[in-house]
Amino acid sequence: MRLLKALEQTDPMEIGRELHRFAAELYPICRSITGDGFRQTLALIQHRIPLQIIEVPTGTSVFDWTVPKEWNIRDAYIKGPDGKRVVDFRQCNLHVMNYSTPVHATMPLSELRPHLFTLPEHPDWIPYRTSYYQENWGFCLSHNQMLVLEDGNYEVCIDASLQDGHLTYGECYVHGRSPDEVLISCHTCHPSLANDNLSGLSVATFLAQMLAGRDLHYSYRFLFIPGTIGAITWLSRNCETVAHIRHGLVLTCIGDAGGFHYKKSRRGNAEIDQAVAHILRHSSEAPEILDFSLYGYDERQYCSPGFNLPIGCLMRSVWGTFPEYHTSADNLDFIRPSQLAESLHVCAAILDVLEHNRRYRNQSPYGEPQLGRRNLYRSMGGEAVGVDISARLWVLNLSDGEHSLLDIAERSGLPFSAISDAAELLCQHGLLV
Amino acid sequence: MRLLKALEQTDPMEIGRELHRFAAELYPICRSITGDGFRQTLALIQHRIPLQIIEVPTGTSVFDWTVPKEWNIRDAYIKGPDGKRVVDFRQCNLHVMNYSTPVHATMPLSELRPHLFTLPEHPDWIPYRTSYYQENWGFCLSHNQMLVLEDGNYEVCIDASLQDGHLTYGECYVHGRSPDEVLISCHTCHPSLANDNLSGLSVATFLAQMLAGRDLHYSYRFLFIPGTIGAITWLSRNCETVAHIRHGLVLTCIGDAGGFHYKKSRRGNAEIDQAVAHILRHSSEAPEILDFSLYGYDERQYCSPGFNLPIGCLMRSVWGTFPEYHTSADNLDFIRPSQLAESLHVCAAILDVLEHNRRYRNQSPYGEPQLGRRNLYRSMGGEAVGVDISARLWVLNLSDGEHSLLDIAERSGLPFSAISDAAELLCQHGLLV
Amino acid sequence: MRLLKALEQTDPMEIGRELHRFAAELYPICRSITGDGFRQTLALIQHRIPLQIIEVPTGTSVFDWTVPKEWNIRDAYIKGPDGKRVVDFRQCNLHVMNYSTPVHATMPLSELRPHLFTLPEHPDWIPYRTSYYQENWGFCLSHNQMLVLEDGNYEVCIDASLQDGHLTYGECYVHGRSPDEVLISCHTCHPSLANDNLSGLSVATFLAQMLAGRDLHYSYRFLFIPGTIGAITWLSRNCETVAHIRHGLVLTCIGDAGGFHYKKSRRGNAEIDQAVAHILRHSSEAPEILDFSLYGYDERQYCSPGFNLPIGCLMRSVWGTFPEYHTSADNLDFIRPSQLAESLHVCAAILDVLEHNRRYRNQSPYGEPQLGRRNLYRSMGGEAVGVDISARLWVLNLSDGEHSLLDIAERSGLPFSAISDAAELLCQHGLLV
Repeated sequence: MRLLKALEQTDPMEIGRELHRFAAELYPICRSITGDGFRQTLALIQHRIPLQIIEVPTGTSVFDWTVPKEWNIRDAYIKGPDGKRVVDFRQCNLHVMNYSTPVHATMPLSELRPHLFTLPEHPDWIPYRTSYYQENWGFCLSHNQMLVLEDGNYEVCIDASLQDGHLTYGECYVHGRSPDEVLISCHTCHPSLANDNLSGLSVATFLAQMLAGRDLHYSYRFLFIPGTIGAITWLSRNCETVAHIRHGLVLTCIGDAGGFHYKKSRRGNAEIDQAVAHILRHSSEAPEILDFSLYGYDERQYCSPGFNLPIGCLMRSVWGTFPEYHTSADNLDFIRPSQLAESLHVCAAILDVLEHNRRYRNQSPYGEPQLGRRNLYRSMGGEAVGVDISARLWVLNLSDGEHSLLDIAERSGLPFSAISDAAELLCQHGLLV
Repeated sequence: MRLLKALEQTDPMEIGRELHRFAAELYPICRSITGDGFRQTLALIQHRIPLQIIEVPTGTSVFDWTVPKEWNIRDAYIKGPDGKRVVDFRQCNLHVMNYSTPVHATMPLSELRPHLFTLPEHPDWIPYRTSYYQENWGFCLSHNQMLVLEDGNYEVCIDASLQDGHLTYGECYVHGRSPDEVLISCHTCHPSLANDNLSGLSVATFLAQMLAGRDLHYSYRFLFIPGTIGAITWLSRNCETVAHIRHGLVLTCIGDAGGFHYKKSRRGNAEIDQAVAHILRHSSEAPEILDFSLYGYDERQYCSPGFNLPIGCLMRSVWGTFPEYHTSADNLDFIRPSQLAESLHVCAAILDVLEHNRRYRNQSPYGEPQLGRRNLYRSMGGEAVGVDISARLWVLNLSDGEHSLLDIAERSGLPFSAISDAAELLCQHGLLV
Repeated sequence: MRLLKALEQTDPMEIGRELHRFAAELYPICRSITGDGFRQTLALIQHRIPLQIIEVPTGTSVFDWTVPKEWNIRDAYIKGPDGKRVVDFRQCNLHVMNYSTPVHATMPLSELRPHLFTLPEHPDWIPYRTSYYQENWGFCLSHNQMLVLEDGNYEVCIDASLQDGHLTYGECYVHGRSPDEVLISCHTCHPSLANDNLSGLSVATFLAQMLAGRDLHYSYRFLFIPGTIGAITWLSRNCETVAHIRHGLVLTCIGDAGGFHYKKSRRGNAEIDQAVAHILRHSSEAPEILDFSLYGYDERQYCSPGFNLPIGCLMRSVWGTFPEYHTSADNLDFIRPSQLAESLHVCAAILDVLEHNRRYRNQSPYGEPQLGRRNLYRSMGGEAVGVDISARLWVLNLSDGEHSLLDIAERSGLPFSAISDAAELLCQHGLLV
């Protein structure tokens, strides 16, 4: 199992610290679905992997949508009656509702209030809000911050621009022997939110690094795109590429302490669905496999009925179900090196399955071949039989051209790695082709 | 959802009282599988809905069966040694075994006893017995009545006739746009038994009333027939009509306080099976879905292998499982207005599903269409998404020409009404055809 | 149900004692995968059923294997420093590792030890060991025996021969009307082990006796073969016969007190799988149906991908899961007459299903035929309906040429025997063909 074996040559804690360090590097940037924050993020990814950066002009038609105006922000604040900043974008970029239109005005608190968003149930946290497709402005702040605001006039400033420009995204293509592709997609549009989705960006970047230069069956395509509009834009510009996609994963929220969750593709029985479920069952505790549904991330676009791609979504905790979701508490403490490392490990194991899953034919299909004379069996009746030999017997019995190695792993209850090792050994002995 | 919406314009208790009132009107009549009691019943139904009444002569061959002689009864009694009526048909028509041959004789108690039927476990109730196809006579009485009978000579009289005549049934056809039909069938042959099956007669009659004059996709046929022989007779005379039946329900025992039970058609996966299960899951507590079996009502005939129609049986309590079944305790107190109204509501919901269930095609199948600019989506990221929007997303995603709205409702876990409303709205916006 | 009915004419305890007596007759013989012990065993079986005995020369190629040298043993012992036999083959043939090469030497205990096998967790039991395909020698003894061995020189003698000869097996063919076959296979190579597999030999022999001379649909072939190499040898010499096999069972470990276990064929949904599961569910408590797997007996060979025969394995306790397995505790006390008789009964019931399972067509498929006028139904409404009538209704309803009687038994929840009786009766009345 090449990727996993490569990974296992390095201390996982060291890998975890690297993954976390990269997330930390990206954390302060104020990203949105367009703009310079997105470009800065791609530039940092580009330091690590070869990334093609694509700019799509505002107003471009992409299926039913139109590429929006580009949003950039320099500063934003609310100054209290005493002229001091009571809410300050420079302290936390979540303070501004993402895609807020520019504003500079003075108004009484009563007029300001409808533009303020808080989380009363978590009075210290700042919520994350966006208004991409309806022009509006607003501030997010902790509930405690709001409680101490006194009546009076407030100076409100969002020094932002919402103008014709571009939607930007990054694409990294790793060549394999086949033009068939595995797509790994991460939404890259969230500002200072660590689990959602710097965790995905970091793991995807390291995965691309690991794949680079390897002898691979599949080609791999990594997308760093703004959520929804980015996936729709990419799909509308890559209809021919889409025909090559054999498997895919959306990676998100994979740095927190939660157990793994996998949301299956719309097909529900795609090889990627089978592969992820297998790996999670064998390598993590109490994973949960969720049916396809219409909340979530860009799998919604990849699995729209016109495409119906075999792409699922791998997570630890599920969006919307953990209190830190879309708040300032989704910070760098919320994602841990060991968890990021484990997520990378799971991803590598999944790709190993995809790379090595195929159908073989037993060349000695009448009765069991005599493994003993090839030193592939225990020598003496009465001894226990281990996983290795069990895997060989299963591979021989089910390699009839119909069952894939993953099918055999599932039916035997053995891990794919044992089945795949058995197949390799049996091929070396000429028993399998 | 037109039928349900129509229903919801009236106070359900008022509807319930009307349903019960009609059952009460029918209750005193001594029905059997033939005869004037059956005709009187049809006449009362005909006061409410247009009913074609069919008379089939005694001796007519109907598949493997023959239409039996017509049975009519005027009076019946057992007079004690003192000349007083100890069992009196005029007090309760269950006292006579249905289809008893005429008898007028005096005999000692010992000779009478084999003709007396009681329920020792419910000593106050009168059982309901029939002997349609074997000539016999008998009396049913409460066990307590029997216990006080003293030795002596009894005058036994059943003033009945069993002669060539007709088998009678009623048929109400409601035109829809399509010649495809939904069949609603009720056995109408039981005498003073309220749940079995005045409840079915009453609900079916009101359903026919509701459908009359509506713009309907399907045509609807309501049958009021004697059990078994009636269904066989109708089938044998309507082979061409049978080819138009797309869905059907046998309605029986739907007035008591029990939870809903649905016995699936022989096919087990017909659209009617899916529709009823869906509605029951969404509108009643702990419904039970039963596999097809060979006890029950006229679904046995409709689902015989030569027809194998998609017809199931909707009940509250299941025949034979409640103590009041086929006894005098199945009276007008045993069925309640609120329960009858709920049953009508469930039937209307089922017909609504049948009427509106179809397959659509998403006209914007590449990525999600932008609902926001059509005001079909929440405007601001971060807010909760409701059932309405969820239904729209599911309909769009699964409307690929393969999935029916009912399939989508089942897969999404949402009620059919929400899915159907979403489809209607999306059609108005040109997103669905 | 002919076989079962035949069986039920004899007292089951008498049958059980006969079965046990035969196992006891075979018990003392030192069997192996080749040699005279195997021949003596076949000779005793031949006393009871017509058995063709086949000899296949050493060195014959059989698929991927080669028929091994023939092993025969006359005597074996370990003599202690005092010249007395401390381990004596004449007391128990398990004392010698089966297929041990000849040896006659004197050696200190330290040199002997690697050749001694014990079961420390069951210190009174002698383990059963083999070394068929790797030349080696060894002794098996109770752990307590070993503990008292003192240092000193031991005379070790295995007076055996391992020479060119033959592999022997026995075959009993019972003619039926059809050339289609049912295969019953027993491994016959274990020495003094009662459950594994004298239980199988005894039951199979009696089954062959019962079938002889009967009017049978299928032909039956009973194989008494050495494990693994015997099945492979038989398969390699009978490729044309294999094409006639419609169903099959490997019988083993069916004399102990455990509940029944059935390991399904590789196909998992073969008629034999359905038949055995049905019979076990209806005739034994808490049977367990196991998926096909790659440990076990000769079903491994029959279910190799080149053959993929519909052959499962019927057991009581499963090999390797009971402590007595492959030890001297698997003796004649471990198998009981009543258990052997019950196993024979189950086998007969399974064969009855295979013999009588077929698809019929209801000749009166439109509505239910009128059973009453044929005296096939209760005469009076209101009485309970028994299994007999229920079976008739199910057979009529599902006999559409698609459902086998076994399918109908499964769907109705009724025992196959009731369904089969109903079909016979309905055929007599011309209602079924």
